[in-house]
Amino acid sequence: MSRRGPESTSGRRGRRQAVTVEQSPTVALRNPYQPFEILSRDQVEAIHRASLRVLEEIGVNFLLPEAIDILRAAGADVGTDGIRVRFDPAFVEAAVAKAPSSFTMHGRDSAHNRTIGGDHVNFCLVSSPPNATDLARGRRPGNFEDYCDFLRLGQSLNVAHFFGGYPVEPIDIPTPIRHLKAKHAMATLGAKGQCCYALGRRRILDSIEIARLARGIDHNRLMVEPSLWCVINANSPLQYDKAMLQGVIEMARHGQPVIITPFTLAGAMAPVTVAGALVQQNAEALAGIAFHQTVQPGAPVIYGGFTSNVDMKTGAPAFGTPEYAKATLAGGQLARRYGLPYRSSNVNASIAPDEQAVYESEMSIWPCMLGHVNVVKHALGWLEGGLSASFEKVILDAEMLQMAAAFLKPLAFDDDALGLDAIREVGPGGHFFGAQHTLERYEHAFYRPLVSDWRNFETWSEDGGKTATARAHEIYKTLLAEYQAPAMAAEVREALDDFVDRRIAEGGAPPEE
Amino acid sequence: MSRRGPESTSGRRGRRQAVTVEQSPTVALRNPYQPFEILSRDQVEAIHRASLRVLEEIGVNFLLPEAIDILRAAGADVGTDGIRVRFDPAFVEAAVAKAPSSFTMHGRDSAHNRTIGGDHVNFCLVSSPPNATDLARGRRPGNFEDYCDFLRLGQSLNVAHFFGGYPVEPIDIPTPIRHLKAKHAMATLGAKGQCCYALGRRRILDSIEIARLARGIDHNRLMVEPSLWCVINANSPLQYDKAMLQGVIEMARHGQPVIITPFTLAGAMAPVTVAGALVQQNAEALAGIAFHQTVQPGAPVIYGGFTSNVDMKTGAPAFGTPEYAKATLAGGQLARRYGLPYRSSNVNASIAPDEQAVYESEMSIWPCMLGHVNVVKHALGWLEGGLSASFEKVILDAEMLQMAAAFLKPLAFDDDALGLDAIREVGPGGHFFGAQHTLERYEHAFYRPLVSDWRNFETWSEDGGKTATARAHEIYKTLLAEYQAPAMAAEVREALDDFVDRRIAEGGAPPEE
Repeated sequence: MSRRGPESTSGRRGRRQAVTVEQSPTVALRNPYQPFEILSRDQVEAIHRASLRVLEEIGVNFLLPEAIDILRAAGADVGTDGIRVRFDPAFVEAAVAKAPSSFTMHGRDSAHNRTIGGDHVNFCLVSSPPNATDLARGRRPGNFEDYCDFLRLGQSLNVAHFFGGYPVEPIDIPTPIRHLKAKHAMATLGAKGQCCYALGRRRILDSIEIARLARGIDHNRLMVEPSLWCVINANSPLQYDKAMLQGVIEMARHGQPVIITPFTLAGAMAPVTVAGALVQQNAEALAGIAFHQTVQPGAPVIYGGFTSNVDMKTGAPAFGTPEYAKATLAGGQLARRYGLPYRSSNVNASIAPDEQAVYESEMSIWPCMLGHVNVVKHALGWLEGGLSASFEKVILDAEMLQMAAAFLKPLAFDDDALGLDAIREVGPGGHFFGAQHTLERYEHAFYRPLVSDWRNFETWSEDGGKTATARAHEIYKTLLAEYQAPAMAAEVREALDDFVDRRIAEGGAPPEE
Repeated sequence: MSRRGPESTSGRRGRRQAVTVEQSPTVALRNPYQPFEILSRDQVEAIHRASLRVLEEIGVNFLLPEAIDILRAAGADVGTDGIRVRFDPAFVEAAVAKAPSSFTMHGRDSAHNRTIGGDHVNFCLVSSPPNATDLARGRRPGNFEDYCDFLRLGQSLNVAHFFGGYPVEPIDIPTPIRHLKAKHAMATLGAKGQCCYALGRRRILDSIEIARLARGIDHNRLMVEPSLWCVINANSPLQYDKAMLQGVIEMARHGQPVIITPFTLAGAMAPVTVAGALVQQNAEALAGIAFHQTVQPGAPVIYGGFTSNVDMKTGAPAFGTPEYAKATLAGGQLARRYGLPYRSSNVNASIAPDEQAVYESEMSIWPCMLGHVNVVKHALGWLEGGLSASFEKVILDAEMLQMAAAFLKPLAFDDDALGLDAIREVGPGGHFFGAQHTLERYEHAFYRPLVSDWRNFETWSEDGGKTATARAHEIYKTLLAEYQAPAMAAEVREALDDFVDRRIAEGGAPPEE
């Protein structure tokens, strides 16, 4: 791989420049505040009870015979069609109770290990859009070059804790070998925790092996060190398809976490009321998690929420709406009720990386913070309801997330911070700029922005009058120019390259698998 | 006034068009959620105690002899300089306890009466920028035509509950008569609750009289029906100047509310730590409120918070920062500790109505919602740290505030909303679009946006590929074209015109006053 791999692109960029983009430092982010409770306890229980009734009275379709066998063996009630499973509430509650409340996700470099659960907050790079876009080149179908550039940005940005899947779909790589080239690039261009897709058993197993080889560890150690996660979407309403169920089974058996995420768009795949959509979300999540814990009790699993609503005029999905904000907060209460880590997302439905993209994102980011979301998927770069990955939006999101992280930093509150002596020293009508109290804290007193321009009108105008998105364009280009691939031991690299080269030579994962 | 008044501008716009801008309906907005507590109880008490020590040990300068006389007569300790007042903690606590916890602010039309305090949320149009700006004409000094257009927008937008002062400074009107023409326009182009400035006793008295005449009520009724408010800024640190103290005295004696707002920029006019800036904010607010309640016990008063921070690189004020968010939340806890209504603002430091303007605004709007701010000043249209009023930002803010209002609408949670029957009807693999449960709620199920474009990429591109701010430009133009002046009884209008004409003929308020 090494001669034709993505790292050669980095080589073409020439000599390293000094770092000119100032970022907040890398931190393991924790939330010091009480979770915001949008639902009363009674309302949480009402959703819980209603979702258990959905599972018991209506049931969920499991479209994989192997999954049906596993559930039947565990005593679940399988219908005469061989796909519909009705769940006894006690079975569901007992299975869900086996899942751990937190675990450590491992990066390729242990500096990127992060706790998932409790008050820990983690941000993931965008995943899965079919298109890439930037201000200069416009919107184009996803391709491997853009894919690698997004990975470089994700690796370079301190506020991105994890990769979240393919930041854009590299559709110029043939599908049988796409996962091999894509995962190889993710493992070499980055050193952060990884994500794969449930697109058939062979691809999952290849992805797990790449994650293991990239970390240079054996199978036993991988089993107890989650290093790769996979989103499992319900095919809402109330169905799990074959590929997703294979994903649950293989990930669980290898000790790698899954994020069980119903895709409950109110008014389309779920009831038009937020409460109803939450009932269905919870039913689907519990069914998926109960199945997962039946396959491998105690395996790491995350409760995923993705409840939004459609535009009732057009049927198009809307994101970052007030309904989305409420559902995100309510989902957190449900996840905490079951003692599970919680995943939500930073979403918007804007076509351009513009003001709408930003206010819809903030209608996602704030509820993610308030609702103690542990894993914020699509935290950087999502645009157009997930149809585009935007380079400028990666940077705008990084700014918003850095600000969110600064908001989560507790206030200093000792006697010195209360500043009585400084107030006394300066006195009525004075100025604090030159006070000792100020000078001692000059450098790190306040959040320092990535994109925001706080210069005056005249200076800003003379410098071209650039909007925040135009500045974000320049910042992402600078970050790419300054990108440095993280180190990887030669023997690790060799084993990884060998595996990927061999699997590509074998034809990868042909369609029939 | 009637022939040359601002309403003639509206006449020039020609025939009325059908209403084409779809807005959320006008509502008296309440916050159903628990306030977000960023400070522990101990921390609130620590700020309280430290600010009482500031007032007792350091004191506050009152730069108006009349105010000193009032405080001395009430037993306060006035220094030998005749301006420094040191406050006994018991005096402060007793005075502040006399202020009402809520009151009704009256619009000219009673449909715009709103409660100030408790869980009530109110949004004010931008006030006081020296410049106006829009995408087509760029930034220009404030003028009466723009001033009137902002008032028309404020009147037309349902989500704007109040005027907040002059939406832009009409500097083409000579200063002695500016307040007369400006207040006349506010009273005739709008029917919402009003605001005036503490720019000398004569202007305050004129403004109070215009508010009274516009409502067609007598002095006794005005005394018990707040109809006009005024922001009183401390000249931080720890000073109140002459004009502000005259404002407190006249407003209080006429039963009209003041919003006591220290301008505590951490690192400049206040300590560089947020905790220290809050101590000083609280000390200044308590001093102002204690003085106000000494002038007129029980008069309506609002605790104002405007603590932000400077950019330590340049000394320029920054707004909508993480520090601002924390200070806004903490301020709410302090106001509630004293049982007072609370004011904060929707602020940003962006030069353009762009992505930065939006994310900094959301870093203000969310804390305003979470912190139970009762009066959100500058809620619509503020830009550039208050140096510009932006027509497009008015519309972007209206969208963000409508979304915030929708977020504050409690979720339906009855059995029907839980949707069990709908989930049963649709079943696994089905679709909710045609379900009875959906059809019954089709129209009002979800928030309907003002600016957001949820169409697909192709449709959006064919329609010009407009960003949200470009669409906001069109929306504000449409709202102005569709503006209709609210009704005013002929005799009320005549009395109002007569007063303003007479005062203008008298020369208004010359500089020496």
